[in-house]
Amino acid sequence: MKPANEIPKATARRLPIYYRYLRYLNDAGKTRISSTELSEAVKVDSATIRRDFSYFGALGKRGYGYEVEYLLDFFSKTLNQDNLTNVALIGVGKLGQALLNYNFHLSNNVRISAAFDVKPDIVGKIVSGVPVYPMEEMIGQLRIQQIDVAILTVPQEVAQTATNKLAEAGVRGIMNFTPIRLSVPENVRIQNVDLTNELQTLIYFLDNDIS
Amino acid sequence: MKPANEIPKATARRLPIYYRYLRYLNDAGKTRISSTELSEAVKVDSATIRRDFSYFGALGKRGYGYEVEYLLDFFSKTLNQDNLTNVALIGVGKLGQALLNYNFHLSNNVRISAAFDVKPDIVGKIVSGVPVYPMEEMIGQLRIQQIDVAILTVPQEVAQTATNKLAEAGVRGIMNFTPIRLSVPENVRIQNVDLTNELQTLIYFLDNDIS
Repeated sequence: MKPANEIPKATARRLPIYYRYLRYLNDAGKTRISSTELSEAVKVDSATIRRDFSYFGALGKRGYGYEVEYLLDFFSKTLNQDNLTNVALIGVGKLGQALLNYNFHLSNNVRISAAFDVKPDIVGKIVSGVPVYPMEEMIGQLRIQQIDVAILTVPQEVAQTATNKLAEAGVRGIMNFTPIRLSVPENVRIQNVDLTNELQTLIYFLDNDIS
Repeated sequence: MKPANEIPKATARRLPIYYRYLRYLNDAGKTRISSTELSEAVKVDSATIRRDFSYFGALGKRGYGYEVEYLLDFFSKTLNQDNLTNVALIGVGKLGQALLNYNFHLSNNVRISAAFDVKPDIVGKIVSGVPVYPMEEMIGQLRIQQIDVAILTVPQEVAQTATNKLAEAGVRGIMNFTPIRLSVPENVRIQNVDLTNELQTLIYFLDNDIS
């Protein structure tokens, strides 16, 4: 088994997809699966699946396939599903409230545990089970609560300023829901998620018949 | 200017990003921008920007840059921002309600105008301004309302069944928020958005120091 930092990025990106499907199979009482079936379900070709799995030393038996429970257990450990990662939400507007309400409830290992906003009517309250702190306390609270992953759902005008503060607070990963491309120090990782953009792109492709 | 279906996919994907930033500049009263400034803001190298723009015949002047209003007007037409695209939401659970509440309010041209669910306590009501119809009426309503883009936020167990019905109703584009990889006829386009997956991937990369 390779050390995690030698695993190709593309493989790492597919791990949660495999994990989620295996959990679904396990819940449905299925005990084994062939790489062909798995390939069909997750839409990744079976040669790629076999190569991905080989990085982790998880090798199926020819003509038998993979043991669902074994794989699930294995991926669960690899993805650190046993440890809860607390995440902060910065900006409790419409999308922010939506994400608080959703709170990644399909996942075992991620939870928004603190939120931050500037609006007096929401600060100091508990929204969908999560406390909303004032923005002035953000750096302090993130340090006290040892949170190093943040979800950014502030208005785009303040996105960069908020990001600078997150970096100052020691945050290492930001899931960015604003349309702004953020500038960050080298040690901070950004994952951009632009829902409006995704939908507009889909519609643009449809309108123009691009396949 | 090339016909839209000859524009590279990668270029098409960047159009909404350019558009959103230009709108932001225009709102801020800025009248022109250099490709270097634009590059810095949207995190796309300036050679790529110039090539992208050249597909549309939008050429900046050397040492002057691009006229913001002209470009905005141009992209607005290209992205069909003047026409409203009505979109259906399938599944009004936590994430579905979140998306109804958000309703792509940053965009001029997209709106969720009909939602569908099975839960008696929500069917027949108007949620965040959008009517919720029973699932049995989905195919009929989509046809009557001529909606051909859908957002899928149903439980994963029924994702494929719902997708089959969407295809039957003539839907051409599906934004899939479920972790399931959907099987669809060739004429239906899928855009996968898995928020839990995105967040898990970010955390996995951080935990394992993959840059």
